[in-house]
Amino acid sequence: MTVSAQRRIYHIPDLPGYVTLKCDFHSHTVFSDGYVWPTNRIDEAWRDGLDAIAITDHIEYQPRKAYIPTDYNAAWKIAGARAVGRNIILVHGAEITRSMPPGHLNALFITDADSLNKPDFMKVIETAINQGAFIQWNHPGWKAQEPDGIPKFYPVHKELIARGWLHGIEYYNDQEFYPLVMDMCRENGLAVIGNSDIHDVISETFPAPAYTHRPMTLVFAKERTPESLREAMFAGRTAVWYGNSLAGFEEYVAPLFRSAVTAGAPFRDDGKSIWFELSNNSDLPMELTGGPEGAPAEITLPASGMVIVKADRRFLDEPMTYSVSNIITGTNTVLKAEIRPAAN
Amino acid sequence: MTVSAQRRIYHIPDLPGYVTLKCDFHSHTVFSDGYVWPTNRIDEAWRDGLDAIAITDHIEYQPRKAYIPTDYNAAWKIAGARAVGRNIILVHGAEITRSMPPGHLNALFITDADSLNKPDFMKVIETAINQGAFIQWNHPGWKAQEPDGIPKFYPVHKELIARGWLHGIEYYNDQEFYPLVMDMCRENGLAVIGNSDIHDVISETFPAPAYTHRPMTLVFAKERTPESLREAMFAGRTAVWYGNSLAGFEEYVAPLFRSAVTAGAPFRDDGKSIWFELSNNSDLPMELTGGPEGAPAEITLPASGMVIVKADRRFLDEPMTYSVSNIITGTNTVLKAEIRPAAN
Amino acid sequence: MTVSAQRRIYHIPDLPGYVTLKCDFHSHTVFSDGYVWPTNRIDEAWRDGLDAIAITDHIEYQPRKAYIPTDYNAAWKIAGARAVGRNIILVHGAEITRSMPPGHLNALFITDADSLNKPDFMKVIETAINQGAFIQWNHPGWKAQEPDGIPKFYPVHKELIARGWLHGIEYYNDQEFYPLVMDMCRENGLAVIGNSDIHDVISETFPAPAYTHRPMTLVFAKERTPESLREAMFAGRTAVWYGNSLAGFEEYVAPLFRSAVTAGAPFRDDGKSIWFELSNNSDLPMELTGGPEGAPAEITLPASGMVIVKADRRFLDEPMTYSVSNIITGTNTVLKAEIRPAAN
Amino acid sequence: MTVSAQRRIYHIPDLPGYVTLKCDFHSHTVFSDGYVWPTNRIDEAWRDGLDAIAITDHIEYQPRKAYIPTDYNAAWKIAGARAVGRNIILVHGAEITRSMPPGHLNALFITDADSLNKPDFMKVIETAINQGAFIQWNHPGWKAQEPDGIPKFYPVHKELIARGWLHGIEYYNDQEFYPLVMDMCRENGLAVIGNSDIHDVISETFPAPAYTHRPMTLVFAKERTPESLREAMFAGRTAVWYGNSLAGFEEYVAPLFRSAVTAGAPFRDDGKSIWFELSNNSDLPMELTGGPEGAPAEITLPASGMVIVKADRRFLDEPMTYSVSNIITGTNTVLKAEIRPAAN
Repeated sequence: MTVSAQRRIYHIPDLPGYVTLKCDFHSHTVFSDGYVWPTNRIDEAWRDGLDAIAITDHIEYQPRKAYIPTDYNAAWKIAGARAVGRNIILVHGAEITRSMPPGHLNALFITDADSLNKPDFMKVIETAINQGAFIQWNHPGWKAQEPDGIPKFYPVHKELIARGWLHGIEYYNDQEFYPLVMDMCRENGLAVIGNSDIHDVISETFPAPAYTHRPMTLVFAKERTPESLREAMFAGRTAVWYGNSLAGFEEYVAPLFRSAVTAGAPFRDDGKSIWFELSNNSDLPMELTGGPEGAPAEITLPASGMVIVKADRRFLDEPMTYSVSNIITGTNTVLKAEIRPAAN
Repeated sequence: MTVSAQRRIYHIPDLPGYVTLKCDFHSHTVFSDGYVWPTNRIDEAWRDGLDAIAITDHIEYQPRKAYIPTDYNAAWKIAGARAVGRNIILVHGAEITRSMPPGHLNALFITDADSLNKPDFMKVIETAINQGAFIQWNHPGWKAQEPDGIPKFYPVHKELIARGWLHGIEYYNDQEFYPLVMDMCRENGLAVIGNSDIHDVISETFPAPAYTHRPMTLVFAKERTPESLREAMFAGRTAVWYGNSLAGFEEYVAPLFRSAVTAGAPFRDDGKSIWFELSNNSDLPMELTGGPEGAPAEITLPASGMVIVKADRRFLDEPMTYSVSNIITGTNTVLKAEIRPAAN
Repeated sequence: MTVSAQRRIYHIPDLPGYVTLKCDFHSHTVFSDGYVWPTNRIDEAWRDGLDAIAITDHIEYQPRKAYIPTDYNAAWKIAGARAVGRNIILVHGAEITRSMPPGHLNALFITDADSLNKPDFMKVIETAINQGAFIQWNHPGWKAQEPDGIPKFYPVHKELIARGWLHGIEYYNDQEFYPLVMDMCRENGLAVIGNSDIHDVISETFPAPAYTHRPMTLVFAKERTPESLREAMFAGRTAVWYGNSLAGFEEYVAPLFRSAVTAGAPFRDDGKSIWFELSNNSDLPMELTGGPEGAPAEITLPASGMVIVKADRRFLDEPMTYSVSNIITGTNTVLKAEIRPAAN
Repeated sequence: MTVSAQRRIYHIPDLPGYVTLKCDFHSHTVFSDGYVWPTNRIDEAWRDGLDAIAITDHIEYQPRKAYIPTDYNAAWKIAGARAVGRNIILVHGAEITRSMPPGHLNALFITDADSLNKPDFMKVIETAINQGAFIQWNHPGWKAQEPDGIPKFYPVHKELIARGWLHGIEYYNDQEFYPLVMDMCRENGLAVIGNSDIHDVISETFPAPAYTHRPMTLVFAKERTPESLREAMFAGRTAVWYGNSLAGFEEYVAPLFRSAVTAGAPFRDDGKSIWFELSNNSDLPMELTGGPEGAPAEITLPASGMVIVKADRRFLDEPMTYSVSNIITGTNTVLKAEIRPAAN
């Protein structure tokens, strides 16, 4: 027996000492307000080359209940066997669905979603924490709940942080991103997260060729196991891959960039300029801007692509410094990277 | 300055000790019966991720001469500067174009194509050989010249071989392949070659998605230099990538397969069967057939794809042997490959 | 408000006096063994350019009942409002799911699916008939029920026909077709039907570019209304469009071909041959074979495509007769068509 | 014999009394600074569904002359036979290539391009006029010649107009458009023209899916003949189709819009609002903006697509007026169009 549908293999480098796990920690099924059966989420994850997903049906929002009796663990039970068969890590989860504040939060790595159905919000979080949960604040700038679109910590969030009960925030959700989340996470030791929050069919919501991949969280884990995944998330070793951009702290995205982008030795030298190949061995395109005098002002490196760079001979001895405008490292910062041709 | 059009990066593994160069040693321009200017052949090669090409306009067939005076070195001169700018190895070549026998032969790595314009065929070859040429017999089963489509050595070819003046034969040309060439090359120490023989626009002749790449010769060279390329071709370290197939001698294609196809450790074991992931890290799909009892009879591994294999537990201790039906190693043979899950 | 997702407009000609309705009378949801919520079937139909669909969840097969209580009319109720909003004709249906004989049959245009849940098969059909149902025999050669793959009338089917209780048979289902159904329908006055029998996501089951459309039944109706649709089906005015083929009785497919394929006047005449354009104004490719002496033996006319035909001058005065090998008119027959250039 | 490569059939409506001819009046070959052989331009035109093209190699710019002796009629002679075989109207042309003013001008419908090789510009034009030429001013805002990018009439152009020696101006060329050309043409009775000015391979310069078609001039001719084409151009019955936009005078684009966009009868009416289908039967997408109160503010109608419009019931009695923002009728104006649902 082989699984016949193709699994997409994305070329995203591992970091030294870590494997890069591709994850989506926010999805829905017919057991809340989604449109597909739980096993479909596993099949989608298989095709999309993911290592781990969470199904996070709403606790407090059950619009299908006239037809489908509430069972908060149903999706987990139904999808579990399929996940085992496809070697996908299925994270047990649920979306605690309140008005803002506190808004919506996912409890991940829980053991019983039914236990989260109670009125007192802090009790719910405590219950999840007692199950070992990673608590993720979802779409904090969602205009349906936060009309100005600006994520902000309310007292309840500060209380969660103070107790160590908040572990990550969605920088990206569905089609939206929230720049402030980068610094909110940095300042509070939280993980930067990005998810699809998929309700409908993933391939129709993020269709090719407009999308080359769904939004996802990259987790830099010691191994590809549920335990390592969980450890890495609590340690905040994450980045978000969405559209043609990557958002993550410099300590993770800088080595990722260095693994992905390689320069060849100069193949031509006319005494004034050198020419060398610059390759991108990843599926993440790279947009280099702000190049120095005597080098290209901008370099667009397509996914799995190569360009030829012409530059002054002085760059045989000193690096060219660029801003990587599509790798976001903070609310107001992007990655700085040095390019230098290989030695001949 | 950067070259903006994307260069396609094909994932074809290097062999231990060698780099895999992607080459096309047969193409035409308006300087014989082709339809494009010579620089286009370099631009196409750049986009197609090739390392080396030869432009091989016909010596004896000059249908454009009412408009374009014959100049056998013109394409070489015109394309040369562009090749330098794109870091493409441009092999100086020409196609000696006779009726069968001897048929059409490419002289590659020559220094002056004008010198090949003389009536006596053996003198022409001798002249090329004196320039250091690699002599390649083109489309030996082309029905326009060999009505039964069966390549065969005529006395003139045997004479060339006896003198050491024949070095390779096209197993693949344009849209045709000639199975007998595998054994003809094996028995005579010749290189197996495959080329596009492009006359028109390459992207329109081998259009996506029907074609993922043009037909090409893979050359396993010590380095990416003209000298190493030439050394590898004379040493016969080649294979042909065409459509979804690869043709080459076992000593080259077996390690290529082993680099491309990797098995994970079993992720599931029910006491009777094991399940493991089988990945193809190359752009060459793999068709495994003739699997043993207790394992899948057939496995289709898409390019850059992954499947899950279920097999008896006994395959923890012994390999599964398959025929790789799309990797041709001889006129009547395909690659045999062993698959075994990684250790846990 | 506009519906933003694109609706595909297929170019399939109307017949004189009729509009061609594109229909799929066989689909499933989570309310039997399908994988999507009922509204998705409407959204898919909208995008796929369909005029009418039936959701036909199984009566006797309810594998989700541990999670979703049986409600045979649920999908109809849920999808109804969406169908109204999208101007899709939603046919109320159910799949009576028995072992062979009688196998599986869809009751279409019913008013209450719950009433079909009773043990006695003939009573079930009688109940449906009393609701005005069109009874369609599904996948009669499905190997899970008919191991030799050959559809055959059992006594129960003959009894249904005798009573006027059988109105159509699936010639095509999912990925299979049953040639014998053409003559079985012809001899018994039944409609030829083709459906997707979709359980999963339609765009993933019939993905582009491998598929340009899902399998569907073309119904030649007086108007685009539920009543006209029903009238046409009982009258047997149908054809099946699947892959690159069309199956239907000659009285329907011949005028469709004549509307789709048009020949221009000769634009060139050298005294011996004429040249003219042959155009296909439909999304159905046409494969013409068996051409006469002095005309092309075969003509491939792509969807919305054009070719140039060169033929003897005598075809100014007499038609060229071809077999249209991809338009099936009976178990052993294909459409014969005459091609003649337009007058100058 | 049939031509096997597919000819694309674009759905662009004819106007009442006219057929819409798809034309490209500006292209180059190896006989000036192009990169392909002249027959390729005919093959490209066939595949692109064009009715007419002109090859317009430069008179004064002959960069290939070291290899290809100047012959201004060569491309015309070489491509002519192929045009006859493909039923493409090949317009004999040449590009008079001067610095600005006067810049570059195409002479179309000439009989001898060699005769245009003389120093005195007005003499050249006079010679062309005496051959019956249509004179088209090319890319009047090309920054290489007009640094501010703003097209302007110099005395020489006014002189041409005064003598009746200028008949059209390129509003669109390659990837650029010049808004002022709309009014410059309107005020002087000139035809609005748009061309590819292709030098390289058309399918690589305007690649799918980024481009669905090359830029082209639509000519509204009485018949599909060279004479009718010429008559229509001198009469100024043209429009330009480029990217997702159309530029032309209202008398031509308004009926084209009305043929392309059709509204169905309301299929739903809740006493307050109506719903109806709005279809686009053309390959030109339509961007409707500035909708009235009680109707959608914006409607995007994809090529060959359909949307559902919800609007107040009062629009049963009065039309909805929109600006069609991608149909340009003047330097500062776009088409105004009325939408009204069909009667029930």
